[in-house]
Amino acid sequence: MILEQIKSPEDLGGLTAAQLQSLAGEIRQRITDVVAQTGGHLASNLGVVELTLALHRVFDFKQDHLVFDVGHQCYTHKLLTGREAEFNTLRQEGGLSGFPNRRESPLYDRFTTGHAGVSISTALGLALADKAAGRPHRTVAVIGDGALGSGVALEGLNHAGSVKANLLVILNDNKMCISGTVGALAHAFTRARTSDLYRDFSKEVRRMVQTMPVIGSQLRQTLSTVKDAIKDVIVPDHAFEHFGFRVLGPVNGHNLRELLRTLEEVRTISGPIMLHVCTEKGHGFDPAVRNPADYHSASPFIEQNGKVVPRAAASQQPAWGDAAARIILEMASADERVMAITAAMPAGTGLCAFEEQYPERFFDAGIAESHAVAMAAGLAAGGMRPVCAIYSTFLQRSYDQLFHELALNENLPVLMLVDRAGLVGADGMTHQGLYDIAYMRSLPNLVLAAPADEGELGGLIRLGLEIEQSMAIRYPRDVVPAGDLCQAEGEHPMRLGRAAVIRPGTDGAIVAYGSTVPAALGAADLLAAEGLKVAVISGRFAKPLDEDLMAELAEVQPWLITVEDGCQAGGFGSAVLESLQRRGLAGKLADIVAVPDELVEHASRGVLLERFDMTATGLARRARRVMAASDDVKQSGDNK
Amino acid sequence: MILEQIKSPEDLGGLTAAQLQSLAGEIRQRITDVVAQTGGHLASNLGVVELTLALHRVFDFKQDHLVFDVGHQCYTHKLLTGREAEFNTLRQEGGLSGFPNRRESPLYDRFTTGHAGVSISTALGLALADKAAGRPHRTVAVIGDGALGSGVALEGLNHAGSVKANLLVILNDNKMCISGTVGALAHAFTRARTSDLYRDFSKEVRRMVQTMPVIGSQLRQTLSTVKDAIKDVIVPDHAFEHFGFRVLGPVNGHNLRELLRTLEEVRTISGPIMLHVCTEKGHGFDPAVRNPADYHSASPFIEQNGKVVPRAAASQQPAWGDAAARIILEMASADERVMAITAAMPAGTGLCAFEEQYPERFFDAGIAESHAVAMAAGLAAGGMRPVCAIYSTFLQRSYDQLFHELALNENLPVLMLVDRAGLVGADGMTHQGLYDIAYMRSLPNLVLAAPADEGELGGLIRLGLEIEQSMAIRYPRDVVPAGDLCQAEGEHPMRLGRAAVIRPGTDGAIVAYGSTVPAALGAADLLAAEGLKVAVISGRFAKPLDEDLMAELAEVQPWLITVEDGCQAGGFGSAVLESLQRRGLAGKLADIVAVPDELVEHASRGVLLERFDMTATGLARRARRVMAASDDVKQSGDNK
Repeated sequence: MILEQIKSPEDLGGLTAAQLQSLAGEIRQRITDVVAQTGGHLASNLGVVELTLALHRVFDFKQDHLVFDVGHQCYTHKLLTGREAEFNTLRQEGGLSGFPNRRESPLYDRFTTGHAGVSISTALGLALADKAAGRPHRTVAVIGDGALGSGVALEGLNHAGSVKANLLVILNDNKMCISGTVGALAHAFTRARTSDLYRDFSKEVRRMVQTMPVIGSQLRQTLSTVKDAIKDVIVPDHAFEHFGFRVLGPVNGHNLRELLRTLEEVRTISGPIMLHVCTEKGHGFDPAVRNPADYHSASPFIEQNGKVVPRAAASQQPAWGDAAARIILEMASADERVMAITAAMPAGTGLCAFEEQYPERFFDAGIAESHAVAMAAGLAAGGMRPVCAIYSTFLQRSYDQLFHELALNENLPVLMLVDRAGLVGADGMTHQGLYDIAYMRSLPNLVLAAPADEGELGGLIRLGLEIEQSMAIRYPRDVVPAGDLCQAEGEHPMRLGRAAVIRPGTDGAIVAYGSTVPAALGAADLLAAEGLKVAVISGRFAKPLDEDLMAELAEVQPWLITVEDGCQAGGFGSAVLESLQRRGLAGKLADIVAVPDELVEHASRGVLLERFDMTATGLARRARRVMAASDDVKQSGDNK
Repeated sequence: MILEQIKSPEDLGGLTAAQLQSLAGEIRQRITDVVAQTGGHLASNLGVVELTLALHRVFDFKQDHLVFDVGHQCYTHKLLTGREAEFNTLRQEGGLSGFPNRRESPLYDRFTTGHAGVSISTALGLALADKAAGRPHRTVAVIGDGALGSGVALEGLNHAGSVKANLLVILNDNKMCISGTVGALAHAFTRARTSDLYRDFSKEVRRMVQTMPVIGSQLRQTLSTVKDAIKDVIVPDHAFEHFGFRVLGPVNGHNLRELLRTLEEVRTISGPIMLHVCTEKGHGFDPAVRNPADYHSASPFIEQNGKVVPRAAASQQPAWGDAAARIILEMASADERVMAITAAMPAGTGLCAFEEQYPERFFDAGIAESHAVAMAAGLAAGGMRPVCAIYSTFLQRSYDQLFHELALNENLPVLMLVDRAGLVGADGMTHQGLYDIAYMRSLPNLVLAAPADEGELGGLIRLGLEIEQSMAIRYPRDVVPAGDLCQAEGEHPMRLGRAAVIRPGTDGAIVAYGSTVPAALGAADLLAAEGLKVAVISGRFAKPLDEDLMAELAEVQPWLITVEDGCQAGGFGSAVLESLQRRGLAGKLADIVAVPDELVEHASRGVLLERFDMTATGLARRARRVMAASDDVKQSGDNK
């Protein structure tokens, strides 16, 4: 095994071409073995094994800078930068993160990342810092063709192309983002890929350069002159040359020799360069090559006789997103105005079935969340009923559109489905969906809601498609509780801004928001065993909040606790607290159970829910603590 | 006067070419006269008089859709759509907004806007809605060359170019955004503008089309064939053709005949079209042509003997932004790592002097706030001390970078200067900087601060350039109070997370955040005249909050009030309330003075501060109300 002997990228220096090739095979095997155990981003990581090896062989990233866009393709990089021994702890509590992480390797992981499109901007910053300090280092950003269509990436390209910094952008063209590249720029890649002229030109220049007895600035000069000369006559214009980049390639991203030779050349060229590298997602692992979307973010699996099966039996219950998508599909059959929009996540948000059934009413905006929400506003202004499904953490990219297109325009009926809202588990701190309540709650006119179960989800979606206002419904990355808990415990019609008392009680009350309702009911059960009748309320709306009910609870209940799967600062509990403050009742809110002000690293969702007391046991414990404190106060009062 | 007879765009139909030309002159005069009184976006509006006239003459925007990007060029549109009589109320309390506004004209203003770059996305939504409903209407987006470089605009173009909708994007190329177009794409415009081939081609096609006895689909077919044929051989490739757009132009945006002829042709072409129109900012008003940046958002002025002077005498005190920029400049002379970044606002943020003195350490990212913040993170990771100045409302575009690059990366020292934070006055609801505290407060690791005056501003900036953490300092669009109120009333060294009791007192306490401190001191003075000693605290940090001091105040003071120039939901007062709740003291916060949950329309900043009780009188009134309520409670207690 060569891999075990690689303690740092410097150890690559002594390897022969054949050994490097073997190492690529070992890495590919190791990644597949570990991801089969832990789950993870398989297809993207298998696609860049050779590219990452070549980068670490040609550059010295102790001084040069390597920035992976998104970072879901950093496994080879981790294996080569001293993290091989721990690699089997990938995505496990306390183990390696699935993304670049400055806590793990301040030297080799320049940024902790997980969102798409920013690598060009951060890399440009690093390059400009080197330039200002007179350091001769090189900066490399590796970005996929999907991410390159995101707004911030295009902003970064546009700026980088106009300032003179030594920035190498590697376009990792795997012919798709997560499930198929979207947008017109994708055609530009296709043209470049399929152009023989372009390919020949690139070989030609390289041949000429190699036979010429020049190096350094002269070589660069020659390369540039030859290229410009040829280009002006015959080479199809590449989209990104308009951004001020010198575009080279395409090269085969699985041919180590070609990669090494090209990177050696490119390393000496100044200014903004884009190198177009063609890779195959899942390369070397047939199931992932055949179905890269399935192996984008794979669950643990087992290989049996060439077939791959999930390690765990599939849940009987669907995921929240799938349940929501099914309801939307029903609504769409009754109302032609219903349209569905996603931002490069048709599978993740469950909208594939919608796309299949109503292709003309479905839009995948690509990794372009800002555009997706603004376009939805346009559809709403045009009389449609757009439903826009985006993960909580990626919806952060649309914050200004939530303000400018939805809040400001008051009565445009856009229904936002905020998926992966709350603790997400193994993807870790870059992907936690903790902030959506807080970042939307201060915007006027938005309706914010969260369902307790499948029944409430349906009720909220139906409401969202009726009202003349924008509404965001949040739910977590989890299976949806079946049925209708609220209805089961009594009649609770869905009304805008009204919460539901789903379990009566007089010994205290837990107001739960969305997916935490079942835990609150469980806590009430535990406390019932101790002789306490605790009321449970499904808050349903963080905005408009059911202020009258909150005030009534504060007045009549001995104590009041809120619980939500989101950040404490500015969240649902904070909304309840503010409301009670306006009525002089703030002192009655005894506890806000939520995620405190910290970054939450990867661990299973179950572990995290337990850590933050969002389970039946945890909530019961918090309730007992509140009662104990209140007894203390009473006793100290009695003693006076 | 023709203008007074135009009650709706339909009235344009009967005018001769000469009359239209005269009308353009009348409109230009009317805009200049009114803006001289009210202030407003002069240069941009004078640039699109003919374009807007031509659009309303050729299209029927009762059914077709017109979306102005940003919307700061909508004055002619307002004058033509039934708002001529009220036009002199522009930007005044209760009068016309300076931006498109659905409340004013649901028919002609499709969206209420004020931020850049989203018009293509919202227009695409309108076009797709028409397509789905089988309506033959046309959608037109008018976007400036500066805004076209913003991420969401590029996302929108990329998507629009790949779906088949009838969308006409008019590139209003005035050779600059607010102060000079930034980025490589700008060169593409220049190439197109200066290319004789391109211009000739465009004339050629038009000539051929006009001499051919065909109309409708045949004409379109011909146009497309001819264009493609010529293009393949001789026409320089236009950057935006890579985005899937058919690009036509450039045409002279001040030649009404050319505009009318071209728009008539373009109206019949299907699919995504971009028409490149060259205009001159400030056209027809010499001072604005000479200095368009000065007349981007002009203050009221007087014309005297061909010279233009401001109507009001300039304040002796500088604006907050200018004061901050001066301090940054001082710091930069002592520390080479200090760099300054803005997003198309070098003048507005006061950073022009920095650019002049340290051009190599200054970066204008263009209208690309997401990129600007990510690049700043890169500079910080490269060992620099970047200072990034962006208006509060536009920083909303960077929300995900504030999370992903700053909060997540924990210890990158980026200093954000959040200008125009709070009530902005005449620009109105699209520009109010009310949400920055709320949207940043839930993100871990960020330091949020606000100074009371010039002295505290200096202290906070020095601190921000020392700590190894990202920090955001907010201040309003206003003049900065001179001196150092805090120091004047005692020694209050600047320490991270520590507030300052700048006026002692025992009859209650007002905790003011940032620019509201002087009003709090004024209120304390008013209450002192009534025999009350009210303490005044400069909160300084919304995060980390001085939790110990807040708890101490809650315990010892008879009442506690907070005040901030921002939204109430999730803001500074909410942070204090949450902190007190954790210590069982939430009942002691008697009032949170802040902007309630509503959109705040245009009015002078003074009027708005008064409306929301952020003045000495207002705060004193709120304090008296709190004391009265508390007396009531006591009395009702005594009566028991």
